[in-house]
Amino acid sequence: MRITALAGGVGGARFLRGLLHHLERTGDEAAELTVIGNTGDDITLFGLRVCPDLDTLLYTLGGAVDEGQGWGRADESHHVAAELAALGATPTWFSLGDKDFATHIYRSQLLAQGMPLSGVTARLASRWGLPDRRVTLLPMTDTPVETHVVLDEGDGSRAIHFQQWWVRHQAALPAERFVVAGLDGATPAPGVLDAIRAADVVLLPPSNPVVSIGIILGVPGVRDALRGARAPVVGVSPLIGGRPVRGHADVCLRTIGVASTSEAVAGLYADFLDGWLVDDADPMAGRMRPVVTARPLLMSSLEAAADIAGAAFDLGVRLAAKDSAT
Amino acid sequence: MRITALAGGVGGARFLRGLLHHLERTGDEAAELTVIGNTGDDITLFGLRVCPDLDTLLYTLGGAVDEGQGWGRADESHHVAAELAALGATPTWFSLGDKDFATHIYRSQLLAQGMPLSGVTARLASRWGLPDRRVTLLPMTDTPVETHVVLDEGDGSRAIHFQQWWVRHQAALPAERFVVAGLDGATPAPGVLDAIRAADVVLLPPSNPVVSIGIILGVPGVRDALRGARAPVVGVSPLIGGRPVRGHADVCLRTIGVASTSEAVAGLYADFLDGWLVDDADPMAGRMRPVVTARPLLMSSLEAAADIAGAAFDLGVRLAAKDSAT
Repeated sequence: MRITALAGGVGGARFLRGLLHHLERTGDEAAELTVIGNTGDDITLFGLRVCPDLDTLLYTLGGAVDEGQGWGRADESHHVAAELAALGATPTWFSLGDKDFATHIYRSQLLAQGMPLSGVTARLASRWGLPDRRVTLLPMTDTPVETHVVLDEGDGSRAIHFQQWWVRHQAALPAERFVVAGLDGATPAPGVLDAIRAADVVLLPPSNPVVSIGIILGVPGVRDALRGARAPVVGVSPLIGGRPVRGHADVCLRTIGVASTSEAVAGLYADFLDGWLVDDADPMAGRMRPVVTARPLLMSSLEAAADIAGAAFDLGVRLAAKDSAT
Repeated sequence: MRITALAGGVGGARFLRGLLHHLERTGDEAAELTVIGNTGDDITLFGLRVCPDLDTLLYTLGGAVDEGQGWGRADESHHVAAELAALGATPTWFSLGDKDFATHIYRSQLLAQGMPLSGVTARLASRWGLPDRRVTLLPMTDTPVETHVVLDEGDGSRAIHFQQWWVRHQAALPAERFVVAGLDGATPAPGVLDAIRAADVVLLPPSNPVVSIGIILGVPGVRDALRGARAPVVGVSPLIGGRPVRGHADVCLRTIGVASTSEAVAGLYADFLDGWLVDDADPMAGRMRPVVTARPLLMSSLEAAADIAGAAFDLGVRLAAKDSAT
């Protein structure tokens, strides 16, 4: 059983950790999971390349994440950042711990030596034992891309890095649109299209549909691969009661002129979505196209995340069986 | 009173900290000190530019050095290095603390942005309050140079970085010679030659005469500036009883075919040395050319270092007065 998932940061990582837990507790350990991670929120800080979503996936799946934050390393210290601040280095609004700095130093060194991001990511994944669990983490592209936010200041002339908007301003600065520098010319990282084409089930975790999943879908070739995939594509709504559990998906949706509803999000995936998991109270519950399953969607624990991921996976398996029966 | 000093790492830094203490306790606070630091032992580790001698000077003069080691930061932790080791990054034989990493990250970022090393060093010096104490730290050159050690394995074909020889192998691998990559084409950093020409006293701390002072002297123009300097040049022997107090100056001298004696070291500076401070028991005591002063040379405390530096400074002042009287 080959499972391929597209994922952003915290929500995607927790969902996928739940999926692995589900597969292990059901004895389905022969399953292979390929995760295609968003790199649009990558940023160069202090000359070091930081990949927030890939790192959150690595740390979470590797059992090393700070559970309280949902990102960064557990048992972390901040001596490097404090000293950089004392030196007058900027920015100071992006928190980087000491162990986390090691990841960025190592990644930057390997990139500078000419290794593509996918190669670097494979190295980092080894440190976290992902190959032993049959998990492959791929960046969506090896091409450096960066999501920028054009601020809604009337003339569309000022854009800031997505991280500055998201982390520093907590998505509170009115945004006009998102622009992904480099995305047009980006090519999918080696293995990305194959992972979609060869999958038995494709999953979309409850990641941000605009700045996480939406960015991955923007890599030339990815959307076409999903449309043409033989496997069913099953997504999990990122909204409960019209609001994201964490993050600012509602603000991002509003920015692109889309309503904060599960139905509207499903509409963003309409050309390839086969199954859709929504919360119990969601008005979409019971809809037939895509096939909608309703259940509690709050990932309040590892077990809860495993239940949700298991439900999405099972829906995918059912849809695949149905498809092969017809 | 303008004082210019050439310096390597630990010994030079302790001597110069003593000099500042001497100037402060004698009320001679209008003195300006320019330190020309060795950059031959600079090394790129994990993609970051590390300048061991400049950093030891910064941390020591800034009151932030690890007193036990003589280098690195006090109250230091090593989370970044531990994580880099877990990632499989190499080398593991060069100890870098977390606060120290911040220095290297910041330096590397500024260098990558096109700032010359002298500009970076001035920034770092500000963090340590050196301008407030009328101290200017200059790298000997902005040109990247690196001292390599050609190993004595018969065919002269294998060379390793100086730090690998010095730190990893504790200078125990037989060396045939030292080669400084990039030195021929290096130019003195802005201010270096002027600091020598305009000085009232030039001091050579008890730094390694081969791989510290010797490297600085190899920067094209520096030696000529010392020969032509109007100020007396006063050095402090790095040897007590024919042996270095710390480090491996005796091994370095042997490698270049020079005896481990104060006389032989003075001979390396013969074309510009006016005064020479040696230990009480040194056979050179009482020699007239260069003018030799003998006194205890063990920098066992800040006060002792201040006494020694004060004696060197006073000898310089005496020689300058004598010179202007004739």
